[in-house]
Amino acid sequence: MNNFFRMGKNELLEQKEALNLKYKEFQKLGLKLNMSRGVPSTEQINLSAKMLDCINSKSDCTDENGKDCRNYGGAYGIPEARRLLAQMMNVNEENVIAGGNSSLQMMFDAVSMFMTHGASGCPPWIKQGKIKFLCPAPGYDRHFKISEYFGMELITVNMTENGPDMDMVENLVNSDPSVKGIWCVPKYSNPQGIVYSDETVKRLASLQPRAKDFRIFWDNAYSVHDLSATPIEILNIMDECVKIHNENLPIMFCSLSKITLAGAAIAGMACSGDNLRDFKLRYSIQSVGPDKVNQLRHVRFLNDIEGIRNHMKKHRKILEPKFSLVINKLKENFSDNPVIKWQNPKGGYFVSVDLLDGCAKRTVELCKNAGVILTDAGATYPYGVDPKDSNIRIAPSFPDLKELSLAMDIFCVSVKLSCLEKLL
Amino acid sequence: MNNFFRMGKNELLEQKEALNLKYKEFQKLGLKLNMSRGVPSTEQINLSAKMLDCINSKSDCTDENGKDCRNYGGAYGIPEARRLLAQMMNVNEENVIAGGNSSLQMMFDAVSMFMTHGASGCPPWIKQGKIKFLCPAPGYDRHFKISEYFGMELITVNMTENGPDMDMVENLVNSDPSVKGIWCVPKYSNPQGIVYSDETVKRLASLQPRAKDFRIFWDNAYSVHDLSATPIEILNIMDECVKIHNENLPIMFCSLSKITLAGAAIAGMACSGDNLRDFKLRYSIQSVGPDKVNQLRHVRFLNDIEGIRNHMKKHRKILEPKFSLVINKLKENFSDNPVIKWQNPKGGYFVSVDLLDGCAKRTVELCKNAGVILTDAGATYPYGVDPKDSNIRIAPSFPDLKELSLAMDIFCVSVKLSCLEKLL
Repeated sequence: MNNFFRMGKNELLEQKEALNLKYKEFQKLGLKLNMSRGVPSTEQINLSAKMLDCINSKSDCTDENGKDCRNYGGAYGIPEARRLLAQMMNVNEENVIAGGNSSLQMMFDAVSMFMTHGASGCPPWIKQGKIKFLCPAPGYDRHFKISEYFGMELITVNMTENGPDMDMVENLVNSDPSVKGIWCVPKYSNPQGIVYSDETVKRLASLQPRAKDFRIFWDNAYSVHDLSATPIEILNIMDECVKIHNENLPIMFCSLSKITLAGAAIAGMACSGDNLRDFKLRYSIQSVGPDKVNQLRHVRFLNDIEGIRNHMKKHRKILEPKFSLVINKLKENFSDNPVIKWQNPKGGYFVSVDLLDGCAKRTVELCKNAGVILTDAGATYPYGVDPKDSNIRIAPSFPDLKELSLAMDIFCVSVKLSCLEKLL
Repeated sequence: MNNFFRMGKNELLEQKEALNLKYKEFQKLGLKLNMSRGVPSTEQINLSAKMLDCINSKSDCTDENGKDCRNYGGAYGIPEARRLLAQMMNVNEENVIAGGNSSLQMMFDAVSMFMTHGASGCPPWIKQGKIKFLCPAPGYDRHFKISEYFGMELITVNMTENGPDMDMVENLVNSDPSVKGIWCVPKYSNPQGIVYSDETVKRLASLQPRAKDFRIFWDNAYSVHDLSATPIEILNIMDECVKIHNENLPIMFCSLSKITLAGAAIAGMACSGDNLRDFKLRYSIQSVGPDKVNQLRHVRFLNDIEGIRNHMKKHRKILEPKFSLVINKLKENFSDNPVIKWQNPKGGYFVSVDLLDGCAKRTVELCKNAGVILTDAGATYPYGVDPKDSNIRIAPSFPDLKELSLAMDIFCVSVKLSCLEKLL
């Protein structure tokens, strides 16, 4: 019997004392473990080390149009890279811009474009007074930070097991002209690992925004990042939008960062209609072109979507045991103690847990004081403030299994201690 | 005697007839030569082919802080890349942000930042009504395009042999609060190859702008791109600015594109004071970091500023004969026929010529119809309009000597024909 809610005060105090001793033992180990970000492990990075051999001084560096990738040009990327990214996003390659190493930068730049140049011929967002962005939460802190940087009002939308609460989204988007966008991580959402249901995608695609310049930022960061042998397929939002002449709604993003070399991969975006016209103009002005050698390097290493899927199996082999370990530790410690709830993700990079209200910050603090750095409590919410102070994002990818096991022991003790402090 | 101005009508007509025959011979060759952009030749690109071997699957990819460059992180670039770029710009490495492959993108992004977030705490440029940017002309078309894209009014400033006409610059900047910036290519300016004199740099550094948010965009694109054995040194604008507490004025940019691989190099920026604070915030939000592997690749290949200087000698060996050829062809054809004037650049990528007023467009058209593509006439002026229609930018770097020789013959005939058309 471990259920804190069924214990009397004395029993709780006894538990606390015992846990405190355990915690102090952990502190003595002098650990230094950073689990704050969804960073691939060195073992995962090494899976793509050979990509660096794909282009050397002896290589033919011409793209399929015969252009030397080492020289200037090609504002939208080389054809074969656009095709590879198109396969990932399940769109036509003419709709794709292949960029540099950062999809986040492409998102930032897209928001920046709408701020100064507007969307679909509407006035620039920055000239429309206070504008709002929908932030399904818990969500990706760096998305929210971009909106915050541009002075938008962030509106928290609850997440359900099928994606953002679509009643809330429809109410807001279809009635309020100051709502200009929504951040979506549709598959294995950061941090909960939630997969948008077909109905969610269809309802998003059929939004009838009051604002003609409303946009869906579709960051399919984990499109091939499955943790199980049976990958989940989500509905293609572009197809759904095109069907009903809503092709101006979605801006899709994808990245090879968590496929090859996290810091030296390639990223892409896809869009249609007015967006494609506007981004093509912008990309032709803002640079003479992306790093095409690195694009070629990626195409030669991965070939096509099948190559990507095969490569991802190797990542899964490394990641799956880590996720299993996290889930097993949570089960061992809390299956009969409902102070914490967790999702069991089928892909992505995180395990999201919800503690007793008011216990997240304290848990993160306790972990930190025992040498385990977690993502700041609250980071997954707009403005970094979790109204219930209950959500914590666990990122199991970076540490090795042994470190992770220890880190999880420390985490579990910290959770119990913070909850006991709350209950007592 | 070739001086058109001293010929009678009949003589001019005879000349024209003879040149037309020559021109038609050229047309029969069915040439296809693109000299529109300052693009390095394949021979130059090959000078850096071995850089691609500097990092392979066996390489230690940690930077000097022990961080794996292949993984995420490092928003401002790796320390050794920042140092290399700092040496190029002659500033402290703490003032440098090492970026991706495009300095143009960093400039675009800088303008974009000031548009939406303002400079030195002033209101965003976009909220200050019509703003103006000074464009020393002839100048770099891509600079002007950025300002145009953001809806600024482009003010043409005349170029003198010492840089922009500083009387004009001071008058405008020190009196008009809507003047927010100036584009500068201080060494071997594009396209004239003009080197800013010490006095010009000092006067720029001591501007007392009416607008507190006025900025100097210092694109030192050709800082080490000398064509002679005795490199020219320009005054360091940051030092001059700091001396008189004007450190918020300059934003400096540099690029390795015309040193290593034009499309796959690295770029950097340097600034101080308010600018550094603002850009550091922005770079920490807009991306998880630049491609650090490519930064490491560059540092391992070039080592330091001495390595760069040695490498540039190899470029000079390829480029210098091409520039000599262009100048010699101009001399041969026009030393006694003042329908055209030219600069003899000591570095950079262009030879700038000024024709009889109203003859530039027609010359470019004639060249095109004989298979030689030049930069559009007017491109070197704001809005792509050369008020005199006289300036043409010749880019001798890409063709080999044989092609270049033929292209220059066609160019010279085209110049003569267009001038004859004008005179007759």
